[in-house]
Amino acid sequence: MAGFLESLESCLERHIPCEDLAEVKRVLSRGEAKLDLPALALSAAQKRDFELQGYGFEAAPEQLRRPRIVRVGLVQNKIPLPTDTPVAVQVAALHRRIEEIVEVAAICGVNIVCFQEAWTMPFAFCTREKLPWTEFAESAEDGPTTKFCQELAKKYNMVVVSPILERDEIHGGTLWNAAVVISNSGAVLGKSRKNHIPRIGDFNESTYYMEGNTGHPVFQTQFGTIAVNICYGRHHPLNWLMFSMNGAEIIFNPSATIGTLSESLWPIEARNAAIANHCFTCPINRVGTEYYKNAFTSGDGGKAHHDLGHFYGSSYVAAPDGSRTPGLSRTQDGLLVVEMDLNLCRQVSDKWNFKMTGRYEMYAEKLTEAVQPYFIPSVIKE
Amino acid sequence: MAGFLESLESCLERHIPCEDLAEVKRVLSRGEAKLDLPALALSAAQKRDFELQGYGFEAAPEQLRRPRIVRVGLVQNKIPLPTDTPVAVQVAALHRRIEEIVEVAAICGVNIVCFQEAWTMPFAFCTREKLPWTEFAESAEDGPTTKFCQELAKKYNMVVVSPILERDEIHGGTLWNAAVVISNSGAVLGKSRKNHIPRIGDFNESTYYMEGNTGHPVFQTQFGTIAVNICYGRHHPLNWLMFSMNGAEIIFNPSATIGTLSESLWPIEARNAAIANHCFTCPINRVGTEYYKNAFTSGDGGKAHHDLGHFYGSSYVAAPDGSRTPGLSRTQDGLLVVEMDLNLCRQVSDKWNFKMTGRYEMYAEKLTEAVQPYFIPSVIKE
Repeated sequence: MAGFLESLESCLERHIPCEDLAEVKRVLSRGEAKLDLPALALSAAQKRDFELQGYGFEAAPEQLRRPRIVRVGLVQNKIPLPTDTPVAVQVAALHRRIEEIVEVAAICGVNIVCFQEAWTMPFAFCTREKLPWTEFAESAEDGPTTKFCQELAKKYNMVVVSPILERDEIHGGTLWNAAVVISNSGAVLGKSRKNHIPRIGDFNESTYYMEGNTGHPVFQTQFGTIAVNICYGRHHPLNWLMFSMNGAEIIFNPSATIGTLSESLWPIEARNAAIANHCFTCPINRVGTEYYKNAFTSGDGGKAHHDLGHFYGSSYVAAPDGSRTPGLSRTQDGLLVVEMDLNLCRQVSDKWNFKMTGRYEMYAEKLTEAVQPYFIPSVIKE
Repeated sequence: MAGFLESLESCLERHIPCEDLAEVKRVLSRGEAKLDLPALALSAAQKRDFELQGYGFEAAPEQLRRPRIVRVGLVQNKIPLPTDTPVAVQVAALHRRIEEIVEVAAICGVNIVCFQEAWTMPFAFCTREKLPWTEFAESAEDGPTTKFCQELAKKYNMVVVSPILERDEIHGGTLWNAAVVISNSGAVLGKSRKNHIPRIGDFNESTYYMEGNTGHPVFQTQFGTIAVNICYGRHHPLNWLMFSMNGAEIIFNPSATIGTLSESLWPIEARNAAIANHCFTCPINRVGTEYYKNAFTSGDGGKAHHDLGHFYGSSYVAAPDGSRTPGLSRTQDGLLVVEMDLNLCRQVSDKWNFKMTGRYEMYAEKLTEAVQPYFIPSVIKE
């Protein structure tokens, strides 16, 4: 069962002696440089009761390209109000909470901020109830949350990635799990819908929305080319690959996942994607336990219960060279500020060149064969 | 720079207090059950100066399938003789060393054993010299090493996976990096050639052999359906995927890689493949430092030198549920014996069902588009 280890890093730092710690961190690849953050930001974070961490990834100097330094901010947070509070009140409280975190991100010089999956609501899909949860859905183009994010973007000159439950009125009022990408100018650049939908345990999301139809768009912003791979897409290497094929340098992965289900996968998948695709990846997980009035079962033979378990936070950033930052807390709200030189992507690509050794023509053919209903696998027997 | 931490696990066990250790191991997913190994095997391993570790992965009982328990053995080893010893003498010494390790594997009840990449030779491709290194190449079908492995297979009723430098006489004497798969009956089942060839640092392998043309065969053995993804194929998620599409339950990954280059990637890629493909993966890395008479440079501006660095061992097994065994030593020869119930593969697949949520039809189309020379990426700008 999941305990409540505050974070792996703090535990290692407390117990491993100095002479071994550097080597342990190297083998775990948790040695990225601490970033100096403004005292004002640190004290504001403390007052507002969230963890603030900063790390930096460097690249080698080049002759023809200047460094392309960007600061990203990853936000993980609990829901501030009980899930049976009126919908509008919950949304307003989340807007306020995010506003005070983004203000600190701005003090830290963050250029691109990303919130957690379905950030304006509890992750209520475990209940299989439609009301009131579907009332949290909004228009991606001009819903109140998008307007709220546009204000933040303009005010702080910040690109905002806002993952919401989307209501698509011009297509029959359908629901989608989508991320809205807002330029630092305040303009809505577009949206990216969740491509892969779970059907596992309490993640009954296929009850609410379908597989996304926006493909693998990348958003060319002033600060870098970004993409959004929402939650369950993390498990699908081809999803990451197609964002990368379209040119993504930073792929955000806003998520909602719990300890007993996925904590053994969490440190692996996004980091593998950073390695395999020569890009930065930014997995974000919500934090805390969310309680529901009506009990529900989990398809595991257990009794009906009122929560789906502990969202373990642990948001982090992985770099194309396989290194990563430590994770944010497993239990607290947090803002992770990471400075990166995007030149590192091409530098690592030129070193390993998986896009050149990848033999994609062969795989395009093989995958085309493999999806045929009467595909004959290549099996050798005695 | 790479230090010589003996292993991450031993360091954690020495320093982290009991009350936190279980939780640290859980977050790192290094908690698999220790396997009781015969005292005779343990003492033989000690006498023969190699590490012997055993772990087990369990699956839930099912009604219609009996447990499918298999024991795999992963062998990592140094080269026993200097690289300027006559070729035949080096090969003979390696045969002897492997023979004494496999004998212990047999005592441990191993059903399928896999050796490291190009196990009959030093990993001499850093030199870019052709002679004497190409003299280590052998016929996959009836070379002396294949005959040696056939004897082992018959004697111990063991499937043997033998990765060698292959000389293909019927195709103009071409060289390949290949793994020969030998049935427990002693019959050569076939071979699987390395699909992805590195061009990085001292891994000048594209000087010696080309991308494999055997596709992604799986071998249906008495103990389970296995595949071999050689070394650099580890970095390519599509390579793992196609072995899995063909039905692999265990994918071996015999490798040769060094600390400064890849140690931050090593714990990630094969484990991600086990997760993404609902199968077991078995990465094996050679160990030690190999010295060459003629100095060579590494394309990094450094001085000519006589070795390509420290092969850090750390062979491990990852399971479809995201858990993994600890790694073998970073510095010593070793045999890792892992018992697994192959029923776990389908159980995890039925739980997460990435093969069902994977939308492979879409990716087959998208990849077909993406490989076109004039592919237009999906980019959204303001």
